[in-house]
Amino acid sequence: MAEPLRIALAGLGTVGAGVVRLLDANGDLIARRAGRPIEVVAVSARDRTKDRGIDISRFDWVDDPAELAGHAGADVVVELVGGSDGPALSLARKTLQGGKGLVTANKAMIAHHGLELAGAAEAAGVALKFEAAVAGGIPVIKGLREGAAANVLTQVYGILNGTCNFVLSKMEAEGRDFAEVLAEAQRLGYAEADPSFDIDGIDAAHKLSILASIAFGAEPAFDDIAITGIRHVLGADIAEAAALGYRVRLVGVAEAGGDGLFQRVHPHLVPLDHPLAHVSGSLNAVVAEGNFVGRLLFQGRGAGDGPTASAVVADLIDIARGEYGPPYAMPAAALSALPPAPTGDRRGRAYLRFTVADKVGVLAEIAAAMRDAGVSIESLMQRGANPDGSVLVAIVTHEGPERSVAAALERLRGSQSLAGEPMWMPILGD
Amino acid sequence: MAEPLRIALAGLGTVGAGVVRLLDANGDLIARRAGRPIEVVAVSARDRTKDRGIDISRFDWVDDPAELAGHAGADVVVELVGGSDGPALSLARKTLQGGKGLVTANKAMIAHHGLELAGAAEAAGVALKFEAAVAGGIPVIKGLREGAAANVLTQVYGILNGTCNFVLSKMEAEGRDFAEVLAEAQRLGYAEADPSFDIDGIDAAHKLSILASIAFGAEPAFDDIAITGIRHVLGADIAEAAALGYRVRLVGVAEAGGDGLFQRVHPHLVPLDHPLAHVSGSLNAVVAEGNFVGRLLFQGRGAGDGPTASAVVADLIDIARGEYGPPYAMPAAALSALPPAPTGDRRGRAYLRFTVADKVGVLAEIAAAMRDAGVSIESLMQRGANPDGSVLVAIVTHEGPERSVAAALERLRGSQSLAGEPMWMPILGD
Repeated sequence: MAEPLRIALAGLGTVGAGVVRLLDANGDLIARRAGRPIEVVAVSARDRTKDRGIDISRFDWVDDPAELAGHAGADVVVELVGGSDGPALSLARKTLQGGKGLVTANKAMIAHHGLELAGAAEAAGVALKFEAAVAGGIPVIKGLREGAAANVLTQVYGILNGTCNFVLSKMEAEGRDFAEVLAEAQRLGYAEADPSFDIDGIDAAHKLSILASIAFGAEPAFDDIAITGIRHVLGADIAEAAALGYRVRLVGVAEAGGDGLFQRVHPHLVPLDHPLAHVSGSLNAVVAEGNFVGRLLFQGRGAGDGPTASAVVADLIDIARGEYGPPYAMPAAALSALPPAPTGDRRGRAYLRFTVADKVGVLAEIAAAMRDAGVSIESLMQRGANPDGSVLVAIVTHEGPERSVAAALERLRGSQSLAGEPMWMPILGD
Repeated sequence: MAEPLRIALAGLGTVGAGVVRLLDANGDLIARRAGRPIEVVAVSARDRTKDRGIDISRFDWVDDPAELAGHAGADVVVELVGGSDGPALSLARKTLQGGKGLVTANKAMIAHHGLELAGAAEAAGVALKFEAAVAGGIPVIKGLREGAAANVLTQVYGILNGTCNFVLSKMEAEGRDFAEVLAEAQRLGYAEADPSFDIDGIDAAHKLSILASIAFGAEPAFDDIAITGIRHVLGADIAEAAALGYRVRLVGVAEAGGDGLFQRVHPHLVPLDHPLAHVSGSLNAVVAEGNFVGRLLFQGRGAGDGPTASAVVADLIDIARGEYGPPYAMPAAALSALPPAPTGDRRGRAYLRFTVADKVGVLAEIAAAMRDAGVSIESLMQRGANPDGSVLVAIVTHEGPERSVAAALERLRGSQSLAGEPMWMPILGD
């Protein structure tokens, strides 16, 4: 059998330890599939003595992960340190500049510095692969980059954050409110102690940015993504949506067209006959629409040591086989710099929810604002008073331009009738 | 830009014409992704003058498809002639032996002769790719062969025939019986004039055999597949299943384990919380279970010119990039010859339906046969008499070995109480 592919592994958290466990468990099979063994030769982590359930004494230990970039025995560095900048970025740059391949699960780093790193990889003629950075174990980067490569992709969207989907699914199943469910998710380890990256949509946006670049051949444009997380979704929103035949999901949507690149992460109402409505718990799913293939769906576990290690090692197998090309399917220099698409022209149906004072004239005020902004109402529900005396008004609009809805909300801004910010959620089309 | 990849195309039916249309429509983008243009240089089909909506005057015309194997200007032959043997097989053999790559959508040929052809491709050092042979546009061969390559896959199963799924979905939605819906599907062009290959499960079995080889590194063993189609599913079965929280789907299941390779195509009851329950109409979907990645789901359009052409051209892009290896992920000689696994030991729940005469003692006879065979009954429903006076008895069993259910059915064989063959369907596990 051919020479092994030799790996230097930076970071031995759950994913790093998972990669070692996976290579131990499935090594023989992987060698048959890859045409040669894949072997870890060196590791680096914060704590050398921590018990991770794996034997690391057989590997070279390096205190400073940056040194792995120059490790004489390694062909490829696997970066599992995390963080968009700092040691991870410095290791990535050194690795590629030094002529070694790089595999990473670091979505923040790729979202912010992917273009630079891809250029460096191409200049050095080495691999840069990041399947594990998006949707965990689901081979969606490969699915778009290679499987759907014959298509002009017009749209890619999906459920990209397992923590948010877990929280929304639990709110739905148990009729509870956000704060309560989040606290439980934190106790169970499904949400971080500081959950903001997940809950506020940043993590999903990192992944969306990567998917958009791959799908559309567009330069990454993370800063152009409009991001709203799930913090302000009420149990009542989920109940109203259910009554209307929808589920609430945090969906990242990217579209490329004549007017540029549209990218948004936002809670959506998803119709029950759409496959994303049936993605529950901590699962992830990605949908892509191609001009010949139609709609493709990829679904699976979007996080966790096993799925993420599976994606990392799939990248390593591709490298061992010599089957890798430019990270974004085409050379980094060939990616288009697309301007952000204006959102106001987008047409669709929307869900609006107002928390209002229970007094005469409130409904008339809301209805007048809708009328004056040209928003056509498909259905309106007002439910009895909350314990604090406030009342929920939920509206589903007919299809129309988003700018009209925004104008209606603007008209209502500061109204004495409203208690708190209104909630607006787009309704995912069929 | 590098030299184009030059294609000789055998077969200009809907898929062949679709490939030409796709390359015309998306050629520039494909060239950027593939690193070089992909160009058709020669074609062969039955009728040179037929209007296919594409201009074929720019290609070399060859009357005998077998000549394409020796076409001096072509690097790769795309075989879209069809049929497991005959001209397709002869073209495939000549192409590979002559040192050209081969891309095919021919599931029957790959199911029956894939091992031989893979050996020939490896011996010649050329590509043999057949993404379009399984599940149309869904990149599931790539997903298993590469995306899930780090995993020991224990199970692969799915909805592999769009015609059957269309018919079952329509029976479900409209409460109609098989023959009626099939006739309509034929009128609409969703089913062939001779629908047997689809309806009786042969087509799904071809695809299952290919998936099993890729997933498990097993030699193709099409002849070992137990195949039952959907011809004997009644509207009443679908209604009973719905009342119990299931949908009926034709599912191909392959499992590899200590006792060999299990492969079966059979109508199943699928629980509503399983993703396959939500695959409706002519869609296809494939699920794979890996020891690290967990459950992966791939879903999309499993047939039609656009999706199939998308898969054919994805294979061509891989070849243009030089990113291909052994067709079955590992060398054909390294595939294991797994014995067929005995089915009797399989444990699961099952649905049984009897059409019985409406007379005293029938239920007791059925119940006694179940008891004597050691089958534990979870639920039993008897519905009022059919117009012909017969009665339906539907049973769901508790989990148990399949051999017990087979023994119970054996005890009832020839009983005067039964009108017609009983229906048995396994219930898909969660």
